Amino acid sequence: MAGNSLGQVFRIHTFGESHGHSIGVVIDGCPSGLVIDEHFIQSELDRRKPGQSKIVTQRKEADQFEIVSGVFEGITTGTPICILIKNKDQKSKDYSHIKDQFRPSHADYTYTQKYGHRDYRGGGRSSARETAARVAAGAIAKLFLNAQKVAIHAYVSQVGSIALNDNYPISIAEIENNIVRCPNAKLAEEMVQHIQEVKKNGDTIGGKIHCSIIGCPIGIGAPVFDKLHADLGKAMLSINAVKGFEYGSGFDAVTMKGSQHNDLFVADQEGGVSTKSNFSGGIQGGISNGMEIYFNVAFKPVATIMRNQDSINTSGEQVEVSGKGRHDPCVVPRAVPIVEAMAALTLVDHILRARLDNV
Amino acid sequence: MAGNSLGQVFRIHTFGESHGHSIGVVIDGCPSGLVIDEHFIQSELDRRKPGQSKIVTQRKEADQFEIVSGVFEGITTGTPICILIKNKDQKSKDYSHIKDQFRPSHADYTYTQKYGHRDYRGGGRSSARETAARVAAGAIAKLFLNAQKVAIHAYVSQVGSIALNDNYPISIAEIENNIVRCPNAKLAEEMVQHIQEVKKNGDTIGGKIHCSIIGCPIGIGAPVFDKLHADLGKAMLSINAVKGFEYGSGFDAVTMKGSQHNDLFVADQEGGVSTKSNFSGGIQGGISNGMEIYFNVAFKPVATIMRNQDSINTSGEQVEVSGKGRHDPCVVPRAVPIVEAMAALTLVDHILRARLDNV
Amino acid sequence: MAGNSLGQVFRIHTFGESHGHSIGVVIDGCPSGLVIDEHFIQSELDRRKPGQSKIVTQRKEADQFEIVSGVFEGITTGTPICILIKNKDQKSKDYSHIKDQFRPSHADYTYTQKYGHRDYRGGGRSSARETAARVAAGAIAKLFLNAQKVAIHAYVSQVGSIALNDNYPISIAEIENNIVRCPNAKLAEEMVQHIQEVKKNGDTIGGKIHCSIIGCPIGIGAPVFDKLHADLGKAMLSINAVKGFEYGSGFDAVTMKGSQHNDLFVADQEGGVSTKSNFSGGIQGGISNGMEIYFNVAFKPVATIMRNQDSINTSGEQVEVSGKGRHDPCVVPRAVPIVEAMAALTLVDHILRARLDNV
Amino acid sequence: MAGNSLGQVFRIHTFGESHGHSIGVVIDGCPSGLVIDEHFIQSELDRRKPGQSKIVTQRKEADQFEIVSGVFEGITTGTPICILIKNKDQKSKDYSHIKDQFRPSHADYTYTQKYGHRDYRGGGRSSARETAARVAAGAIAKLFLNAQKVAIHAYVSQVGSIALNDNYPISIAEIENNIVRCPNAKLAEEMVQHIQEVKKNGDTIGGKIHCSIIGCPIGIGAPVFDKLHADLGKAMLSINAVKGFEYGSGFDAVTMKGSQHNDLFVADQEGGVSTKSNFSGGIQGGISNGMEIYFNVAFKPVATIMRNQDSINTSGEQVEVSGKGRHDPCVVPRAVPIVEAMAALTLVDHILRARLDNV
Repeated sequence: MAGNSLGQVFRIHTFGESHGHSIGVVIDGCPSGLVIDEHFIQSELDRRKPGQSKIVTQRKEADQFEIVSGVFEGITTGTPICILIKNKDQKSKDYSHIKDQFRPSHADYTYTQKYGHRDYRGGGRSSARETAARVAAGAIAKLFLNAQKVAIHAYVSQVGSIALNDNYPISIAEIENNIVRCPNAKLAEEMVQHIQEVKKNGDTIGGKIHCSIIGCPIGIGAPVFDKLHADLGKAMLSINAVKGFEYGSGFDAVTMKGSQHNDLFVADQEGGVSTKSNFSGGIQGGISNGMEIYFNVAFKPVATIMRNQDSINTSGEQVEVSGKGRHDPCVVPRAVPIVEAMAALTLVDHILRARLDNV
Repeated sequence: MAGNSLGQVFRIHTFGESHGHSIGVVIDGCPSGLVIDEHFIQSELDRRKPGQSKIVTQRKEADQFEIVSGVFEGITTGTPICILIKNKDQKSKDYSHIKDQFRPSHADYTYTQKYGHRDYRGGGRSSARETAARVAAGAIAKLFLNAQKVAIHAYVSQVGSIALNDNYPISIAEIENNIVRCPNAKLAEEMVQHIQEVKKNGDTIGGKIHCSIIGCPIGIGAPVFDKLHADLGKAMLSINAVKGFEYGSGFDAVTMKGSQHNDLFVADQEGGVSTKSNFSGGIQGGISNGMEIYFNVAFKPVATIMRNQDSINTSGEQVEVSGKGRHDPCVVPRAVPIVEAMAALTLVDHILRARLDNV
Repeated sequence: MAGNSLGQVFRIHTFGESHGHSIGVVIDGCPSGLVIDEHFIQSELDRRKPGQSKIVTQRKEADQFEIVSGVFEGITTGTPICILIKNKDQKSKDYSHIKDQFRPSHADYTYTQKYGHRDYRGGGRSSARETAARVAAGAIAKLFLNAQKVAIHAYVSQVGSIALNDNYPISIAEIENNIVRCPNAKLAEEMVQHIQEVKKNGDTIGGKIHCSIIGCPIGIGAPVFDKLHADLGKAMLSINAVKGFEYGSGFDAVTMKGSQHNDLFVADQEGGVSTKSNFSGGIQGGISNGMEIYFNVAFKPVATIMRNQDSINTSGEQVEVSGKGRHDPCVVPRAVPIVEAMAALTLVDHILRARLDNV
Repeated sequence: MAGNSLGQVFRIHTFGESHGHSIGVVIDGCPSGLVIDEHFIQSELDRRKPGQSKIVTQRKEADQFEIVSGVFEGITTGTPICILIKNKDQKSKDYSHIKDQFRPSHADYTYTQKYGHRDYRGGGRSSARETAARVAAGAIAKLFLNAQKVAIHAYVSQVGSIALNDNYPISIAEIENNIVRCPNAKLAEEMVQHIQEVKKNGDTIGGKIHCSIIGCPIGIGAPVFDKLHADLGKAMLSINAVKGFEYGSGFDAVTMKGSQHNDLFVADQEGGVSTKSNFSGGIQGGISNGMEIYFNVAFKPVATIMRNQDSINTSGEQVEVSGKGRHDPCVVPRAVPIVEAMAALTLVDHILRARLDNV
C-alpha cells in the first residue's frame, strides 16, 4: 500500500534513508537452492556506486553489503533474504541549508505536503541512494537468470544531443570499457567530454538508456494488466529521474503503417519460430515470443545544479536556494546497472509466475 | 498473480473473452456513498464502442451494461460492484480461419505457447474488447473524481505524421465534436482523411494520445515503486497496442539541461504554491505537486490489416494468413476514453491511499 | 483491501447481495488445461442449496450457475473464470420489516455503522447466500485436487450436545446418505430429531463440523504467517456463523505433555515416512508432512429465531423485532460443502504456491 | 507469496534465522507522525525474551533492537520502518547433533522436504525467535492504538489442567506481577509449581491464553473473507505452537440455542448502543460492534523435551534423537506479549483500512 514493494512472487521490499543507519532490501520469494556469488553482488554495487569516475558525483560511499538472512552456506534457503548497506558518508551538515527550503524539481515539497514530517538529510527516502538496494536485489535476480541463460545488457545510447545512430557500431563488450557506459568507444569519448563541460558550467544534462534482454523463454508475461512490458515500464518509471519508457518500435510506431510494423512469423528448420522484423520488441499481447526484448528509458537532467535558484521555504516565503553539494552532472552512467537490476527483478518475477500457468 | 487485477484500494478485476458470454469487471474497494449515474457510465461506453463512426470498426456491439451488485437504490454500498456487458455480435464463423493460424503481431502465438489452449474467437481474452470493462469501471472512478473537482481529458494529438503543434490552437470543448477526438477541428479533418485513405488501402496507422489531469490534490502518489507516474505508466502500457509512455517533459528531457528543466517554485498571494514551468508534469518524486499532470501515450498501428501476410500455423508450417474481418484502421479515436478510464482508476486508487499517510 | 478476495495464486473474488441481480465469483489464477465437469459443480451447489430437506430453510433457490468466462470447449484457458448464480426467490417484501431495525446478532447494525448505507434485503452482502459463490469456486478447486488424488471430506460431528465419540463408528460413505451429513446413521437420526424439535420451538442450535484431507503432498504451506493451518483457519473463520477453529490436537493440546503429544517419525519399507501418532494434524511448522490433515470448526446457532426479541432501530430507539422468515434451525448440514470448498480453495492455492519453492 | 508478510495497509515483513546475523522486520504503511517511544518497544521485547524467569528457557538473548529507517527525530515519517535485533547467543555447536536428524513434531522434516536445503541451527527460520520481530512491530502498533485509547490485554488462562474459572477473580493489574502472567495470583502460583514439576521431569506442557481488546471503534473489520475475527484467527494461528482459536462464545456456541446466544441490543441514554450479553465477542458479521473483543488461543506443549525419542535422519534411517538444549517447559508465559502483538498488528491494519469505507 505504501508502495515500497515490487513484484508478486520474487518480491522486494526496500527501506532506508540516504543519511540514516542503513539502506536495505528484503527479498521474499527467492526460490531455495540458488548459489549466491557475493563477489558478483559487490561488483554490481560497484557499477552503481558514487565516486567511480570523474563524470559522476564525488561522494564517497563504499556500498558494502551484508547478507542478514536467507542464505545458508552460500545457498538460498527459500526464506527472506535481507541485505543491508550501511551509510558511511553521512555529512548531515551539508544538508542543513535545505532543512527549511524546497529545492526546485526535487521531492522536498511533495514529501512535506504528503507526510508533514520528513528526513531532509540528503533527500532522505527520495534520494537515489535507495537504488543501491535495488541493485543488490537485482544482482540476486541476475544470478537466477544467468542459470537460465538469460542475459540483460543496458547501455547509454544518448547524452544530451549526442546519440547513437547507425553510424556508430555497437559492441556489448565495450560498455564497461568506458566510464559513460556507451557501447561505442568513439561516441563514449564525446559523451564524456560533453558531461565534463556541462559540469564545469554547474549544470546537468539528460540522457537515454537502451536495454536488451536475450534468451527470455517464450510465454513469459501476463495478458491483461501485468503485461510484461507494462511491468517493465513501471519498474523503469519507478527509477529516480525517469521521464519516459518505450519498448520495441516505441514512439516511432505512431507514424508507422500496419503493413510495415507487423512482424511476420518464420518457422526455422529446427522447429523454432522467429519473426522477420522485431518491432514488437519480443513481446506480443504482453507475453514474450522468444525474440530479443528491448526498450528505451529517458532520464531528465539531475535537479541539483551548482547555481542559485528561486524557490520557496517551508513557511511559503520566496527564497534563493544555493547550488551546493556533490551530485552527478548526468545520471545515466550510474543508472545503467539500475536499469538492468529493475529489468532482472521484473523478469525473474514473471518467469516464476509462468510456473503457475498450466495444470 | 494472473494479472487480471489492477489497483490496491480501488481494485478492479476484469474477466471475459471477446466472443464468450459476457465481459465484465468487479470493482472491490469503491467507497460507500457514491451516487451512481448510469447514463454517464453508458455514455462513456458509447465513446469506446465499435461502429460509432466511419473511421472505426463497423462491428456492431451495443455495449449495454448491467450492474449486478454493490449498488443499492442508486448508491454504492461499499461491497464489490460487478458490471456485466453481454457480447452480442458473436459471429464465431468469422474467426474459424484463424483457429489454426497465428496472425502476425497478434497475441495468438504467445497465448498458445503460454497456455496450450486458447479461445481463438476474435482474439479471446487478448481482444481489445476487454477494455470496455475498464471503461465501465473507469466511469465509476470518474464519478468519484468529479465530486472532488478532478477533471481528466485525453485527446488524439497525432495520427501517423499528422501531429498537433503550436500552430494548432487546442480546445477541450472540441474533442468530442469530431470523430477522431482531436482538440483542433482543422487538424481533426486532416486526420480523418488520412485514416480513410489508409483504410482504403487495407492498411492501418499508429497514433498518439495526450492526457491531462486538472485539479489533482497535492500529495497523491507514493515515493518508491508506486510513484504516481509509474502507476500511470503501467496502466497505459497495459492498454492493447500501446508502445510508449512519457510524462511531463518525457523523452524531450534527454536533451535538456537542469537549469532549463527545473521548475522554480512560486508562492502566490493566497499562500498557494505553483511552479513557473511544468516539465515535472505535476509529479515530483512520484507525488503530485498540485500542477497539471500530463502525459503522452504512443499506439502502434492495428495488427489486423486487409492484406494477406506470411505466417505460420499451429503445426509450425508456413502459411498465408488472409486479411479479413472488421477492424479499426487506427486505434486512437476509440482509445481516448480508455486512456481516461485508466488514468481515473489509477488516480482514485492513489487518492484513497493518501488517506493512510498520516496518523 | 475491501476483503472480498481470498488466495494468492488461485485467487477468488466474490460479489453479490442476497436479493440483488446475482451472486458470483471471479477465479483468477486457475491454471490452463483443467477439464471442467459442470455436473460436478452443480452437484456441489445442490449440497449447499436451501430447501434440500426438512431440517433446512424452506426457501427455494435453484442455485443454477452459468460460466461466463475462462472456460473454452470445456477446458480452462488460464484466464479469469467468472461464475454467476442468479437470485431467483427475491421476495423483498419479506424483509421490509427489517429495513429500519437491527436484528440481534446479525450484521445489520455493524454494516450500517461502517458503511452508512446498506442493502437490507435478506442481509444483503452479509447473507450466507454469498457462500454459494464459494462452493462454485470450491468445486473447481476440487476438480484440480481430484486430478492429484487429494480427497477432502467434511461431516457434522456435533449438533447441540449430540456428539460423535468413540462409541459411534464413522463411515465416509454414510455422510451423504442422511440429511444432517453425519457419518454415523444412528447418530444422524438423533441429530435430525433434535433439530426438528428445536425448530418446532422457533429456536436454533449450534453444531460442529470435522474436516479431513487425505493425500496432500508433503511440503505444502508456508513457514511464517501463511502457515497452512493459519490459512485454513482464516478460511473457516470467514464462513458465516463460525466461532472457532482447531486443527490436530486442537484445544485438547492445552492439557497434554510434550512426551504424549510428540509425533514420532517412522520410516516405512518403501522409503516413505509417517508418524506414529498424528496430533500435529498433518502439519508441522505450517507445512504439510504427508499425514492426514484434519480440523474442527465450531458454528453458533443461527441468529434468526422465530421469537420476538428486544432490539433497537436505526433511530436508536428500543423496538421489538418479530421472528419471521424462512431460516435454518441449524446451519451445519448445509455448511458441510462450504467447509469443504474453503478447504479446497486454500489447499489448491498452497499447492500451486509450492511450485515456486525451489530453483 | 512466500508468506513472510502480514497485513494490507499496516504491513509487516519479517526476516531472519535463529542463529544468523539478525532477525528483523520491515513495517510498511505505518502512518507518518507517530511518536516512537523506544523504551516501550524494549519493554515489550523484554516481556518476550528468554531467560526472564525460572520457568522459561535459560538461553541468554538481550534482544536489543535498532531502528534502521523510517523514524526521524523520534517520529515516523511514513517510510518503511526497519527494526533489527542482532542474534547474540549463537552457540551453533549446540545444534550440530540435529543437522542430520529430524526432531519429532518440529519443522525440521517439513522444511527439508519443502526446500531441500535448510539452516538447521536452532530451528533456523522456524524458530520461535522470529516472533521477537513481531513483538517489535507490535509495539509500534500498540503505540498507534494507545493514542486511540484502544487497550489490549492477554493473559494465561490455563496451564495443563490448571485453569481459571469463576472461582478465581481476575485482575488485569496482576498479570505482570507474576512470572506466568496469570491474572490471579493464587492460581499463578499453582501454575508456576506445575511448570517446574513438568520441567524437572524433562517434559513440557500446553496452555491457553485469553486476550481482550477494549475500546475498539465500531465498524472495524471487513464483511467477507477479511472478517475481523478471521484475520485475528489467522494472526494467532501463525504463532508457533498454536493449535486452536475461538472468539466470543467459541466452541461453547456448539451446544447453545439461538435464544440464549443472541446478544440483544440496548440503547443507552447517551445515544450509545451496547448488547446485554456478548457472545458475539464484540464482532458481528466480521465487523466490530463496539463491545469488548475477546478470544482464546490454545498452545501445544513444546516439542523439545529432555528425553530421548525415536525418529529418523536425513537418510531415512531410524535414529534416536537425544533430549538436549535450553527450551521452555511451557510456552504460554512468553507467548502473552506475542498474542498481544499479533492482535495489535491486526487491529491497526483494520483501523486504517476503515478510513477507506466511505466517500
